[in-house]
Amino acid sequence: MSVQPILVNGQWRASAGKETFQAVDPSNKQPLAEKFPISPWAEIEEVIQHASEAAAAVRGWPGEKFAVFLEDYANRIEARAADIVAIAHRETGLPVEPRLKSAELPRTINQLRQAAASAREGSWANATIDTKSNIRSMLGPIGPVVVFGPNNFPYAYNGIAGGDFASAVAAGNPVIAKGHSSHPGTTLLLAQLCLEAAQATGMPAGFVQLIYRTSHADGYKLVSHPLIGASGYTGARHTGLSLKEAADKGGKQFYCELSSVNPVFILPGALKERAQAVVDDFVGSCLMGTGQFCTNPGLVIVPEGPAGEQFIAGVAAKFEAAPVGTMLSGGVEQNFRAGVAAIQKAGATVVCGNKPADDKRYCFANTLLRVSGDDYLKNPHGLQTEAFGNASLIVVAKDLAQMIAVAKTLEGNLTGCLYTDTQGSDDAAYNQLAPLVREKVGRLLNDKMPTGVAVVSSMNHGGPFPATGHPGFTAVGFPASIWRFAILQSYDNVRAHRLPPALQNKNPSGKQWRLVDGTWSQADVV
Amino acid sequence: MSVQPILVNGQWRASAGKETFQAVDPSNKQPLAEKFPISPWAEIEEVIQHASEAAAAVRGWPGEKFAVFLEDYANRIEARAADIVAIAHRETGLPVEPRLKSAELPRTINQLRQAAASAREGSWANATIDTKSNIRSMLGPIGPVVVFGPNNFPYAYNGIAGGDFASAVAAGNPVIAKGHSSHPGTTLLLAQLCLEAAQATGMPAGFVQLIYRTSHADGYKLVSHPLIGASGYTGARHTGLSLKEAADKGGKQFYCELSSVNPVFILPGALKERAQAVVDDFVGSCLMGTGQFCTNPGLVIVPEGPAGEQFIAGVAAKFEAAPVGTMLSGGVEQNFRAGVAAIQKAGATVVCGNKPADDKRYCFANTLLRVSGDDYLKNPHGLQTEAFGNASLIVVAKDLAQMIAVAKTLEGNLTGCLYTDTQGSDDAAYNQLAPLVREKVGRLLNDKMPTGVAVVSSMNHGGPFPATGHPGFTAVGFPASIWRFAILQSYDNVRAHRLPPALQNKNPSGKQWRLVDGTWSQADVV
Repeated sequence: MSVQPILVNGQWRASAGKETFQAVDPSNKQPLAEKFPISPWAEIEEVIQHASEAAAAVRGWPGEKFAVFLEDYANRIEARAADIVAIAHRETGLPVEPRLKSAELPRTINQLRQAAASAREGSWANATIDTKSNIRSMLGPIGPVVVFGPNNFPYAYNGIAGGDFASAVAAGNPVIAKGHSSHPGTTLLLAQLCLEAAQATGMPAGFVQLIYRTSHADGYKLVSHPLIGASGYTGARHTGLSLKEAADKGGKQFYCELSSVNPVFILPGALKERAQAVVDDFVGSCLMGTGQFCTNPGLVIVPEGPAGEQFIAGVAAKFEAAPVGTMLSGGVEQNFRAGVAAIQKAGATVVCGNKPADDKRYCFANTLLRVSGDDYLKNPHGLQTEAFGNASLIVVAKDLAQMIAVAKTLEGNLTGCLYTDTQGSDDAAYNQLAPLVREKVGRLLNDKMPTGVAVVSSMNHGGPFPATGHPGFTAVGFPASIWRFAILQSYDNVRAHRLPPALQNKNPSGKQWRLVDGTWSQADVV
Repeated sequence: MSVQPILVNGQWRASAGKETFQAVDPSNKQPLAEKFPISPWAEIEEVIQHASEAAAAVRGWPGEKFAVFLEDYANRIEARAADIVAIAHRETGLPVEPRLKSAELPRTINQLRQAAASAREGSWANATIDTKSNIRSMLGPIGPVVVFGPNNFPYAYNGIAGGDFASAVAAGNPVIAKGHSSHPGTTLLLAQLCLEAAQATGMPAGFVQLIYRTSHADGYKLVSHPLIGASGYTGARHTGLSLKEAADKGGKQFYCELSSVNPVFILPGALKERAQAVVDDFVGSCLMGTGQFCTNPGLVIVPEGPAGEQFIAGVAAKFEAAPVGTMLSGGVEQNFRAGVAAIQKAGATVVCGNKPADDKRYCFANTLLRVSGDDYLKNPHGLQTEAFGNASLIVVAKDLAQMIAVAKTLEGNLTGCLYTDTQGSDDAAYNQLAPLVREKVGRLLNDKMPTGVAVVSSMNHGGPFPATGHPGFTAVGFPASIWRFAILQSYDNVRAHRLPPALQNKNPSGKQWRLVDGTWSQADVV
């Protein structure tokens, strides 16, 4: 059987690599038919060269060109939705409805269109004009961006279609996509549409390229290569940290989303007021997508006593009653089991689950663990181990002081939630807890679970280390996610006609927001 | 003789360190009387703890509080200008006039006041409100910031008074200043005024602290410490890269300004039109401050032929006629000589200088080197060695194609300049060169030397690696320099009264710019 091709400089071609891999259908553990190549270094080096040529070719292009490409691509994805859903379902085991067809794919198309709108409007570039000194600045493309797609979002974070891809392109950068090994067929199909869109809209040959897999050592060379501008990575912490170290040494930006347990503090008044609603909210969020979300609530802090016990019992009952979802791969199941075991070893006990559920597919019982606040505080690091999947750890805190102590131990997370009552009885506790949680998380929520990530300007899908590598940036939302893939470029005394249009006195579109002498404006400079 | 104290948690106290060092008057090579301590780790750890307490104490404070502190501090510096100038002159050998008294000190005071204005107005925080989803975000303080001051700006980049200090404070962060060993007395005096200002304006005890020196190993522990938010470093490349590696491994931001040769391309028409003016411009910029500027023009590309030779002869004549400035320290002189030697070894020849000038003080003759374009292209890396001081290398390029080839070899730099004629004869060449230079530099200049760094919003004092560690940020200019010391904080469904004032519907000052549903506005949200 022939090996699937890689996309290099506008051409589908056979990889020079001898080694191959196959995806596996997680619903029956059977390898899928198609073979995909592991690319050797010479091939990756060539991809980098072409990306660099593409970066030079599009230098100075107006945002409109990238917008047209992104929109054309979005349309093609929309037109082929049925095929894209079918293959991703087969490769990931994620449900067709509502997940793949009605949630993730529309979100992905929406992200591409929002990125297009940002590129067209141009305000993302933070054009800044100081008329007195005649110095002007704006953000420009950083150079070829490598995007490592994760296993858990075959579309929305896909290396060739997801948020990192869209924001890198919106800034004017070529993308080298590194597809995830668990859904290479989905990635290949998206890349075909991407190439069609690139060709239909006049993008240079090396603007979008695809490889599936490299050796670890070649991955380090790739992210630190002098011709690479930056990388976007979403995935396992260990792999991400190794890649980050290589990129850091080469002076390259490496935006990574590594791990997060997303603490949820449930205060006594909330349980008194609406215990069942909180249980339902939590179980829905925790088991959604078999818990395989970066923002899955993996650490819940409840008060000691009958209300806390009732919460735990309520969750356990629903965990046991709920169907056990299929996991993305054997590796995910294995890591999940190891995570659950590590949490137990660190001091937690099992409330329910923690057992195999169905040998025919990759899965593990919905698992709830618990630990007392006292025991948590003896090993807060070990008890913040991420078990990526359908599990959560409940910390039963003696009192507010112990909740505060737990909050102080938190590592960096994407999100943090506080549930309080609506009558004000939890307000004093909130006022002490929220500031501590605030500084450890990218997004702070009230009375809401963290798993929905809206694609809006104010979203922060990011957070302090080790959730990500830089607490100033978000991977979701426009224009902010674009800023990761941009460099600041100042023009000092540059003659007027030589300035980029966005920095000339006339506002090129009449719609671009520019900071002119300290005032945000869409007007021309007079 | 007693050892000078360090500043810990609001108290001047003796260091526990046994080792000391003394500054040296570079104008006579004599050690100055005062001894300063090298801090052991236990003391640094204590400083970090107090900084962390201070960060917690000021959490949620309005920008006004930081503004009042910065302004009070600026006033105290202004009132003590004569003393501050006297001591810095003694420690650095920099001229009192115009440099210290009329240029650097006013700039430093201005920076503190601009930072105060930014903190008060609040627009730096990029408050973003999406009313439909009720998600809101803004930038907040990153946590205690370590500032490593460099040798060459005793005020404007001083760890306890310079641009990094001012921008870290404007974001609401405590600062741990690490004074530079070549001007510890200046730093001590500034820190005294800083503490007075902090006390007068009600800042917590650990908000501003000062140490002078650490071991290398303790420096690595400091910048990677879990309680540290970020560091700002301006200084030698080797030291900076080691600190950056430690910080990167700890997941901490390390903003560094490492080295830059600041290429200047002089096109034939410019020489034909105004040869002498260009010579004067260049010599003034290159010898200013004995060439000890990050933006010193260290690499000049001129066309082969009589005009290029005339330029070189003109510069050499002025280099030989100009007084030889005093260097900041013996270390600077030694590194400078090593840099000049490395450039020769890489293929350049000496046009003038390259010899001792005055044994009684730290200095070395104004030195001009040259190399053919052919030879440059054989070793572009070696010939981009920074010789920090009063030297520059002229590359004599055969033709435009060779200038382009040179431009393609450039490493990341803070600045890049192009000189062209005003009649358009250089325009075609400019159009080919400028895009190449643009992507390698933070600030692109026309017909202007790079040494003046205006403190304006559109300034980029930054650039691609190895000029700095992140090409998206600037160390000079407000509000952009503040962004280095901030984290993105999103609020999802957070109840209205719990939001920070800047994210509530009412614009707290009526002056803060906020991005409301995609539109920049100073109005209330309705």
